Amino acid sequence: MKKFLNRPEDFVDEMLEGIYRAHPQVTKTADDLRCYVTAHPRPGKVGIVTGGGSGHLPLFLGYVGENMLDGAAVGGVFQSPSSDQILEVTKYVEQGAGVLYIYGNYTGDIMNFDMAGELAEMEDIAVRTVIGNDDVASSIVGEEHKRRGVAGIFFLYKAAGAAAAQMMPLDEVARIAEKARANTRTMGVALSPCIVPEVGKPGFEIGADEMEIGMGIHGEPGISRSKLAPADAVVDQMLDRIFAEESFGAGDAVAVLVNGLGATPLEELYILFRRVSQRFEEAGAAVRNVWLGEFATSMEMAGASISVLRLDAELEPLIAASADTPFFKHVAR
Amino acid sequence: MKKFLNRPEDFVDEMLEGIYRAHPQVTKTADDLRCYVTAHPRPGKVGIVTGGGSGHLPLFLGYVGENMLDGAAVGGVFQSPSSDQILEVTKYVEQGAGVLYIYGNYTGDIMNFDMAGELAEMEDIAVRTVIGNDDVASSIVGEEHKRRGVAGIFFLYKAAGAAAAQMMPLDEVARIAEKARANTRTMGVALSPCIVPEVGKPGFEIGADEMEIGMGIHGEPGISRSKLAPADAVVDQMLDRIFAEESFGAGDAVAVLVNGLGATPLEELYILFRRVSQRFEEAGAAVRNVWLGEFATSMEMAGASISVLRLDAELEPLIAASADTPFFKHVAR
Repeated sequence: MKKFLNRPEDFVDEMLEGIYRAHPQVTKTADDLRCYVTAHPRPGKVGIVTGGGSGHLPLFLGYVGENMLDGAAVGGVFQSPSSDQILEVTKYVEQGAGVLYIYGNYTGDIMNFDMAGELAEMEDIAVRTVIGNDDVASSIVGEEHKRRGVAGIFFLYKAAGAAAAQMMPLDEVARIAEKARANTRTMGVALSPCIVPEVGKPGFEIGADEMEIGMGIHGEPGISRSKLAPADAVVDQMLDRIFAEESFGAGDAVAVLVNGLGATPLEELYILFRRVSQRFEEAGAAVRNVWLGEFATSMEMAGASISVLRLDAELEPLIAASADTPFFKHVAR
Repeated sequence: MKKFLNRPEDFVDEMLEGIYRAHPQVTKTADDLRCYVTAHPRPGKVGIVTGGGSGHLPLFLGYVGENMLDGAAVGGVFQSPSSDQILEVTKYVEQGAGVLYIYGNYTGDIMNFDMAGELAEMEDIAVRTVIGNDDVASSIVGEEHKRRGVAGIFFLYKAAGAAAAQMMPLDEVARIAEKARANTRTMGVALSPCIVPEVGKPGFEIGADEMEIGMGIHGEPGISRSKLAPADAVVDQMLDRIFAEESFGAGDAVAVLVNGLGATPLEELYILFRRVSQRFEEAGAAVRNVWLGEFATSMEMAGASISVLRLDAELEPLIAASADTPFFKHVAR
């Protein structure tokens, strides 16, 4: 295991110490390093809380900041945060307008967020929940509720965060997040495994010339393993799967996120995007907003994902709004 | 070789096509994809041009944008751009106030930038040059002119870019860049090699439990190879070398860049920064600006570098100014 770390059991907390030292815009509630919140909560605004396992930076905590989220409960590597931690973050970000939970569709997270939400409601905090489930590889059409949440949750954060910053009420912010959820689809491809520090060996094996389409960000099995194809053919396989569920044509507009899983260079993400752009151009659809880089990683895993958000007149300005977190900055043009 | 690409010989141009498709703020001069410039040159402003080999994204072209650079000549992977390409970019960014070249200390780049500069001067374009040489591992004190330019060149771009945006004249912008150069020191450490697409195999070998301190971003030999140490000890080795040349104490202020070389997760960079921050705290010096992430990579190389810029009253506001490129955004606070 070749990582910059001290003791594997300190990996998450020392990472958090580094973040707090680097970025005074964020802080922890009271004594728990893993209750990560904005240092500047805004009175009267709906609070948005996320959370999940570590090892995916900038997911989850990287989206806490202006025009995005207000807090994140941080779990161990690939582990859910506790309901106590989620409740603690919830109480901090409650500013009189209620709290929206947005997180990925994983059993442990659902259990702990649900429990925290019930405890929060008992303390008279209104809570709504929208669960990201954008990974089209992880279940068939008609069983979307079984799909995992992956990088596309970024679009839920972006849209709901901008809506909350406009001081929309809780039900409206939840409706926006839900619309972004329904309109977002992601396909991923993995080329190499990653190593959980406290485990010390790769989570799976993959041949030197193989790729796995549809693999999850914790190494969950994908839908096909084959020889690594040329970049354009890889993109075509991924987009064909998305386009089979949702067609795009003249008059349609989308936002696109090409996400690196950890070890894949930015150069390669642009080569992938070149083909994504060609495909939408051929379909006659407009790509209005583009982000490329690392947004939801699996530590040092090589691979990429492509997320597509169908835009409408309501979502487009929210997606295009400025945002400013220590990990993500966007300047509206 | 496990990369997302089509033909290796198209790697750079297809990457550039992807970038132009994604980011309308940048464009190419005339027909050459590799002459990369801002789409919105500003009349009367000093133009700043950089350039160098591909494979280091976001270096070099990623810093072309508002409050930073105006153009970049893009070479093949780890190869210099041609003097013709540099001249083409120079002519485009000349807006009546002259042009400053800022690039790294590599023989091919120096030869081609010098030639382009001479040709530009013959066309009555005033040209100044500042060459980044921040890598303290690459030569001893007293022979700093032999040192390679690595991630610390980011500080030269940031300071000179902000100075040019304030409409300072050419000699002033060059003086600022030169001061940032003299005040910047970097140390790197590599854990794994990378593969040049047209070569198809790693540039060097390194043992499964080894690190190399001081390795260059093209795999140039470092100053020591040893067993991978705990993160805090790795940082101490790197900073001890910087502190041996330049001491920091009470009243001193610095900007710090912790840069990932490609495959190293952001989590690990924060663990490294935690120790960097502790060391400056122990010395009594203030860390005023912090950036972490990938700023100058070596494709899929695992490793990191730490760059330190000594601030003064003139550099500090320039370093802290807002900037907005497709690859780098900073919002002044």
